[in-house]
Amino acid sequence: MLNATAIDGIPEVTPDDDLAALIVSALAGEPLGDGDVIVVAHKVVSKSEGRIRRLADVEPSERARELAGQVDKDPRHVQVILDESGEILRARHGILICLTHQGFVCANAGVDASNVPGEDTVVLLPTDPDLSARRLRARIGELSGAHPAVVITDSFGRAWRVGQCDVAIGCAGIEPVEDWRGRVDANGRELKATVIAVADQLAATADLARAKDVSQPVVLIRGAARHATAEDGPGARALIRSKEQDLFR
Amino acid sequence: MLNATAIDGIPEVTPDDDLAALIVSALAGEPLGDGDVIVVAHKVVSKSEGRIRRLADVEPSERARELAGQVDKDPRHVQVILDESGEILRARHGILICLTHQGFVCANAGVDASNVPGEDTVVLLPTDPDLSARRLRARIGELSGAHPAVVITDSFGRAWRVGQCDVAIGCAGIEPVEDWRGRVDANGRELKATVIAVADQLAATADLARAKDVSQPVVLIRGAARHATAEDGPGARALIRSKEQDLFR
Repeated sequence: MLNATAIDGIPEVTPDDDLAALIVSALAGEPLGDGDVIVVAHKVVSKSEGRIRRLADVEPSERARELAGQVDKDPRHVQVILDESGEILRARHGILICLTHQGFVCANAGVDASNVPGEDTVVLLPTDPDLSARRLRARIGELSGAHPAVVITDSFGRAWRVGQCDVAIGCAGIEPVEDWRGRVDANGRELKATVIAVADQLAATADLARAKDVSQPVVLIRGAARHATAEDGPGARALIRSKEQDLFR
Repeated sequence: MLNATAIDGIPEVTPDDDLAALIVSALAGEPLGDGDVIVVAHKVVSKSEGRIRRLADVEPSERARELAGQVDKDPRHVQVILDESGEILRARHGILICLTHQGFVCANAGVDASNVPGEDTVVLLPTDPDLSARRLRARIGELSGAHPAVVITDSFGRAWRVGQCDVAIGCAGIEPVEDWRGRVDANGRELKATVIAVADQLAATADLARAKDVSQPVVLIRGAARHATAEDGPGARALIRSKEQDLFR
């Protein structure tokens, strides 16, 4: 049985907070095991890493002003999005679809104003979310003695489908992708193209377990131990489709 | 707490089997409640509805032969894919990305050869998966006295990201999409673009709870009752992005 529990008691996170300590403390009633998965919404990770920008400090470029007009956004917000992007793939319907420096294709380069105290502050994605996950995992290990997996998430929209699903933008201690190619199904047939985005499905599970209107950035998942690994592993980078393999870029 | 349990004891399903009866019987040890969600892999639904084709009965057209050469597939398999598609969006890397008659954008129009007994048989998507979900829900209600939600799933690939996630192709008794636009976050800020694909996240959760190498097409999810509805609701059709709103078609 798989189960997911949203953890209460994570306070508002600020730069230089020891996020791992806040998580271990909030998990006090739940003894951690090595097969457990701790799913963390990226916002608290970003905040602890100081990946925040005050719009008052941002001077929008000509291009930011132009794009802002097209998508009806604050030009300073658009400037931050441009700063976080290698390429803008689409600009329509009030949304910029960006290729971020981390390699993600997502709306507004993951730059988000919601759940941020202070009207003119935006939160960026961590610079290297896999590194963030590895650090968080190591520090949780130091503090708790256990070595659960860590998955850092964001909510991404999808081509072709309505609504957002949470996906893994960083991870450590979990196989991000389970590859069944070459294995056989229950009828002994070879499975031709079954590659399961395990870390993304863990992210989606965690999102269902929490409420959006209260602050529950951390979710503990149990029952996914078969995907856990002792090593940190390849990270969520393995979930990024290369440009050559991508039919829709 | 959210939890998901894969249900054992569903036999190989054949056309005209009473799938709801098989499910209720397999669930015997789990008293069903109205807030429960029964997630069913579409293959057993399709099989019970006779949505199967023997390749020996298929005569490939000229176009099917041509496409089959491009993507290295059996021309008869490609013919079935063409029969299930309104449009072929891409043909590359051994995959046909199709717009199905149901409105889904997915690989090979959901026509799948794995987990099918008999080498030359393929399974199609249900003709109207929302109708399938409503019927299954009604029949489960008759047999069990409870009215759980029903979600019918398939594994879809994604643009930009590696691997497949399970998504909802049909549902009844669950809100497929939770729309937070206009509501406020924990800091009192309006949430601008938070539309959560609840039914897809339920599908992803269920997929994590089951093993792929044994036959566990049915997963029971508890703890998602806040998304359950007495009415059947709009179905997974609500998760299909209209062509006008789609930036990547």
